Amino acid sequence: MSLTVVGSIAFDAVKTPFGERERMLGGAAVHFSLAASFFTEVRPVGPVGDDFGPEQFEVLEKRGVLCDDIERVPGGRSFFWRGRYEYDLNVAHTEDTQLGVFAEFEPKLSPASQEADTLFLANIQPDLQRQVRAQCGSARLSGLDSMNLWIETAKDSLTAAIAEVDCLVVNDAEIRMLTGESNLARAARAVMAMGPRAVIAKQGEYGAALFTEGGFFALPGFPLEDVRDPTGAGDSFAGGFFGYLDGVEGELDDAELRRAMGYGTVLASFNVEEFGTERVSRLTREEIDERFEQLRSMTQFEGRVAS
Amino acid sequence: MSLTVVGSIAFDAVKTPFGERERMLGGAAVHFSLAASFFTEVRPVGPVGDDFGPEQFEVLEKRGVLCDDIERVPGGRSFFWRGRYEYDLNVAHTEDTQLGVFAEFEPKLSPASQEADTLFLANIQPDLQRQVRAQCGSARLSGLDSMNLWIETAKDSLTAAIAEVDCLVVNDAEIRMLTGESNLARAARAVMAMGPRAVIAKQGEYGAALFTEGGFFALPGFPLEDVRDPTGAGDSFAGGFFGYLDGVEGELDDAELRRAMGYGTVLASFNVEEFGTERVSRLTREEIDERFEQLRSMTQFEGRVAS
Repeated sequence: MSLTVVGSIAFDAVKTPFGERERMLGGAAVHFSLAASFFTEVRPVGPVGDDFGPEQFEVLEKRGVLCDDIERVPGGRSFFWRGRYEYDLNVAHTEDTQLGVFAEFEPKLSPASQEADTLFLANIQPDLQRQVRAQCGSARLSGLDSMNLWIETAKDSLTAAIAEVDCLVVNDAEIRMLTGESNLARAARAVMAMGPRAVIAKQGEYGAALFTEGGFFALPGFPLEDVRDPTGAGDSFAGGFFGYLDGVEGELDDAELRRAMGYGTVLASFNVEEFGTERVSRLTREEIDERFEQLRSMTQFEGRVAS
Repeated sequence: MSLTVVGSIAFDAVKTPFGERERMLGGAAVHFSLAASFFTEVRPVGPVGDDFGPEQFEVLEKRGVLCDDIERVPGGRSFFWRGRYEYDLNVAHTEDTQLGVFAEFEPKLSPASQEADTLFLANIQPDLQRQVRAQCGSARLSGLDSMNLWIETAKDSLTAAIAEVDCLVVNDAEIRMLTGESNLARAARAVMAMGPRAVIAKQGEYGAALFTEGGFFALPGFPLEDVRDPTGAGDSFAGGFFGYLDGVEGELDDAELRRAMGYGTVLASFNVEEFGTERVSRLTREEIDERFEQLRSMTQFEGRVAS
């Protein structure tokens, strides 16, 4: 079992009401990889600059993430994002984005990455997502994230990319925007008509909903009294989701997808407890399984006993 | 078992992208009563004007709702609300509110209403809520809804009213506003410190979350491909929740509160399928129980089997 993820490997500057960090390890592929590393062998694919050093690699390698497909571009600068969150952490503002080496990125996957059983195309330009998808023909399961920017500027290309994956994972507002359908259940059905057999609507602190042919499933966000930095929550969710599924030996039926939603929810919840990768990088599998069971107990209810 | 609810009994003019109604039966106490009527004996308390006629009473009476405490004010006009929803039904605009007979309302409950086992104070001026609460000393369970207007204009009175009930049921934004705490889990704890032993955060299409001493529980909104009019969803939720609990003979423990959340979710979902009271007024208990089981199957997941 092995998992390949392509996406940003970055430095983030983040300010929230609970603190700030000027230059911390971040990026979708990083958050995804750390979350997935608790379940399977993960290979992130993406470019970094000279500024990406041993300290950053160490965070990934300590979690067993295989860094051979992280392409170091001499003379280049790594992707950089600066964001700020309001007192209501649901409201985020992007203050700066510097593509750096990502501007010239041409994905070239190693044979090991190409042979992945599971592929996740994190949020990057959809033509790049398609290039990677084309190199990973044997994936049993593939997923894709995207954002409003690509719906607005590269919709045809994004639609083609979506048609080539099994599972779309985006924010609920983006599912509506992509399909032009305000009703989420109808919008999800419209996405499935494009190709994917599963659609996950990320809903921020409200959790996430899963639409498949077989039905509907939803989980609330894990309730936390201390949320310090929401950056990377969605990528950690996807990492837990696809990481868990990559490790499943049998059929990926709805019961497994639901469990995967649980692990995604749990990984996202740990991610937001501290800044950047701070919490997940020292997380244990025992803590994950404990919170998974807590989440289960928070969402179960029984029918009435016949009286 | 019997349930008393005080709140608006009204005419609504509603326009949504899926149609409009110029003058239909509405109001919090009406939606609540119809939803609760599937579980127990309900008495709505509130004033109406001469314009409230046999046609309106018939909708309630056909569902077995006891209308003796609906006070008909000669020469008066019933409460009137006009609202409009955007293409995204989560966005509502109030275009007109006419208090009518509600402006001079002084709650005088009949002995039967005063003896209710369960009391729900729907969203009205908090001093009026307290007057009703004071008349229902023997209630086993009491709940209260409110809105941003009262948090802004009558916060002390509202805080006193909240201290006198077992369960607060409001929108999640209002819990944050009331407590000045942006983290919902902390905000709910702050409300429990005011008196209630349970706090329900209504979250629109995302469902509802329940906070108690014993823990946390959440349910998604029931997924519907056809939502025509969200008006009254929150009141229908409360009606299903408190109606179910009023019928419970044993202890109102967390397991029962969770079931009640399920029934609240189901009643809210039927309410929004059509305009005003149209769907719920011809609903059956069998349909409710069927959807309750569907909801259960949409929210259950199992832990991994040890391999």
